[in-house]
Amino acid sequence: MSEQEGLTVKKSKDFSEWYSQIIQKAELGDIRYNIKGFIVNRPWATMLMNNMYKLYEDELQKNGHLPVLFPTLIPASNLKQEEEHFKGFSAEVFWVTEGGSDYKKFEEKYALRPTSETAMYPMYALWIRSHRDLPLKLYQRCQVFRYESKMTRAFLRGREFWWIESHNAFTTREQAENQVLEDMRMSEDVMHQKFGIPFIFFNRPAWDKFPGAVYTYAADSLMPNGKITQQPSTHLLGQNFSKRLGIEFGDESGKKDFVWQTCYGPSIWRMVGSIIGLHGDDKGLILPPEISPYQIVIIPILTNKDKGKILSSAKKLFSKLKKSGFRVFLDERDFYSPGWKFNEWELKGVPLRVEIGPKDIQRKHVVFVRRDTGEKKFVTDRSLITSARKSLSDIQKSIVKRADNYFNDKMFVANNLKELSSNLKSGGFVQVPFCSVDLDGEGCAEKLKNDFAGVEVRGTRVDVKEKPKSSDKCVVCNRSAKVLVYVGKSY
Amino acid sequence: MSEQEGLTVKKSKDFSEWYSQIIQKAELGDIRYNIKGFIVNRPWATMLMNNMYKLYEDELQKNGHLPVLFPTLIPASNLKQEEEHFKGFSAEVFWVTEGGSDYKKFEEKYALRPTSETAMYPMYALWIRSHRDLPLKLYQRCQVFRYESKMTRAFLRGREFWWIESHNAFTTREQAENQVLEDMRMSEDVMHQKFGIPFIFFNRPAWDKFPGAVYTYAADSLMPNGKITQQPSTHLLGQNFSKRLGIEFGDESGKKDFVWQTCYGPSIWRMVGSIIGLHGDDKGLILPPEISPYQIVIIPILTNKDKGKILSSAKKLFSKLKKSGFRVFLDERDFYSPGWKFNEWELKGVPLRVEIGPKDIQRKHVVFVRRDTGEKKFVTDRSLITSARKSLSDIQKSIVKRADNYFNDKMFVANNLKELSSNLKSGGFVQVPFCSVDLDGEGCAEKLKNDFAGVEVRGTRVDVKEKPKSSDKCVVCNRSAKVLVYVGKSY
Repeated sequence: MSEQEGLTVKKSKDFSEWYSQIIQKAELGDIRYNIKGFIVNRPWATMLMNNMYKLYEDELQKNGHLPVLFPTLIPASNLKQEEEHFKGFSAEVFWVTEGGSDYKKFEEKYALRPTSETAMYPMYALWIRSHRDLPLKLYQRCQVFRYESKMTRAFLRGREFWWIESHNAFTTREQAENQVLEDMRMSEDVMHQKFGIPFIFFNRPAWDKFPGAVYTYAADSLMPNGKITQQPSTHLLGQNFSKRLGIEFGDESGKKDFVWQTCYGPSIWRMVGSIIGLHGDDKGLILPPEISPYQIVIIPILTNKDKGKILSSAKKLFSKLKKSGFRVFLDERDFYSPGWKFNEWELKGVPLRVEIGPKDIQRKHVVFVRRDTGEKKFVTDRSLITSARKSLSDIQKSIVKRADNYFNDKMFVANNLKELSSNLKSGGFVQVPFCSVDLDGEGCAEKLKNDFAGVEVRGTRVDVKEKPKSSDKCVVCNRSAKVLVYVGKSY
Repeated sequence: MSEQEGLTVKKSKDFSEWYSQIIQKAELGDIRYNIKGFIVNRPWATMLMNNMYKLYEDELQKNGHLPVLFPTLIPASNLKQEEEHFKGFSAEVFWVTEGGSDYKKFEEKYALRPTSETAMYPMYALWIRSHRDLPLKLYQRCQVFRYESKMTRAFLRGREFWWIESHNAFTTREQAENQVLEDMRMSEDVMHQKFGIPFIFFNRPAWDKFPGAVYTYAADSLMPNGKITQQPSTHLLGQNFSKRLGIEFGDESGKKDFVWQTCYGPSIWRMVGSIIGLHGDDKGLILPPEISPYQIVIIPILTNKDKGKILSSAKKLFSKLKKSGFRVFLDERDFYSPGWKFNEWELKGVPLRVEIGPKDIQRKHVVFVRRDTGEKKFVTDRSLITSARKSLSDIQKSIVKRADNYFNDKMFVANNLKELSSNLKSGGFVQVPFCSVDLDGEGCAEKLKNDFAGVEVRGTRVDVKEKPKSSDKCVVCNRSAKVLVYVGKSY
């Protein structure tokens, strides 16, 4: 399983090639699976995703969401129940059409879920009767399928990917809007603070909202090449689905109304892509301690003479760290040299390396090496646990901060196309005055996209209210600007 | 979400109807999803399964298995690589054949995985080079799809179900056989001790082994109606797949050989079926504390006068239990009466109920009620945590023991068809002398199945070596018996 060999390209020189190499060499995924756009998630990526899922699910449950598991297949007739939704997704559907060794055709085609609104909401109509059944806050951890026309990329765009989808129903619009706010807070608490992925939530333009939604708030992050990656979005679905599917509740007086709905879809798989890109360096991955499969790797420096003694000390060290709750791995393999192991675990991004050799045992200390800074220090046996805790906490903070700094440096402002053009060279987001984010602005957005090789209008900021000056003109049509939008190139 | 109403049938009177009612009324699953054989796992079942997954995955990881996530789709050409395997599974395959809104036909059909040997092993051939890459012990937590012709039943037989599949490769047959033993130990430690599902591992007859395996050891359990349910099986695949797919390693001297493989497939979803059936009673589910979504439910007995005081005491109680690591739920809903809540949580099988009312507060105690026995006792505030721990531990042991007693009482011995016929009436397993479990015994097995309405030969015991007496004759053909087999009716 280990055809180890370091990265042969610098991240800053050729990010795309660096990214491909790291997927393979850090043994995250294998793109050689023989269906286009489908990858194998190898143990290192799966363990990472499991830790990420755990943190996200804990947060969801803390906020009163309960888990469910719906079928992977959705009848074509369900998908068609909400017209806009079907129009938005049907181009991306994989269809299951037959079964058995005689390939018997089914009467109806079934979609591999591209998203689960039309699987779940007909059941909501059966489950919800009274205001006592509300709010209904459910989520599922599952994979979804998109028959993508765009180029796929491991952990960024796939024909199958792993996510969480949360689907919620309320008695009032206000409650539903509060859920949207809660979704944004969860993104901050988990995706930003724990995974180290900075982002801004944008209110997507009318032409780019989720098919079937009233509005869409989507978190845009950046990759090191300055390109935007969309991370989770949260949608106010209003009563669009509930009216179509008859999801009604009786209030205290027995009066009927349709529920207000929201949904939220954090893609754990795609977040792995951001984590690889944002934190890694020329030696490989750098994983935040909060989610790294192993937080600490112990490497015994074995000499022929002291092998037994060193291994036994290393094992004691391992037990001590393990007992204190760290995710720790002792690399005992004797067919690899310590140097080989240093490289491997640096490639895999383990935040903290602990070395222990004959001299260290004599001197009653061990060596700590930080993955993010390379900093070395001696740690006495007595302060082992507190030092480990402190080091991991420092590494976590420093990883988040570094990503934030990069992100914040990529925010630009332009007042006309010339400025925009020059700002776009460094990637990131450019704020420009724009005529409208309603459907009447779509023409200008199209023109921008054509004239600037794929630049997209990502929407208006949700976190701060920004207004153009009265003199501001739309950078495209020169009409009076109603909004300040952010534009940039995306994956 | 709560159309509560107790069970209207006794478990002992009509098990099948009882089972259907409990699925619906304990809100475990919903069979109204509009694709035949696909069900919705509601929160109560999903939370239960998540706890079960956690225990199984912890055990797998403790034994050195690492998680992976492979694609859900398998190209038809992969499935066909191992002939016997394809023959065994192709009748049960759902085929994905087209994509997009124009239903574009794919060049090749893709199977929804019925099991993942043919997805995984071609990658093993790429990953394994040297003995240093072995053993390779991987597992995935995923759902699989079977286009079943048999009648489906929630949590017992479905067209989509949730399981773990563990796939392992070794340098020698001995190591592979040790893995089979480890799989059986895991079944005992987790499925039996934690989930309370008793079983016996049988070496399946040659005509009933896993397609592509050298041999199959399968764990058979029982339902309360005396019918056998197959729980996980572990298979020695030998070098069948590795020779076909070229999964080779070089030993220390560089000499090449094919790897030895095993696989093991515990179905968490089906174990839920056994848990429902084995432990439940006329009031509903009884869940083992090790896996119950909530181990303890607190029900405040609210009076108009003391409402605030009682709720605040209940909240303190909740925090105290939560902090000590219990999975605890405080049912604060004020639109349901305490009696209604007692019924609901009994229906859902929560092992321990804690009641707290105005008198209890005065007397500085609470009331514990055991779900399994109905036993009530007063517990002082001071002994709360130790008593809770003790009660849950007692309940766990008692649930396991009760299931074991039931199981052990269903083991019979017969020496001829007349005895067999009479024993079969009570369900369970009947040991009989039999001519052969090699292919030359299949005729007798067929005859038995025809003559006794579906009775199957489940194989010879793995846990104890049993030999027929030299005078024993096969109950069917009257030839000299080479083996003692167990027969019974299965789901």
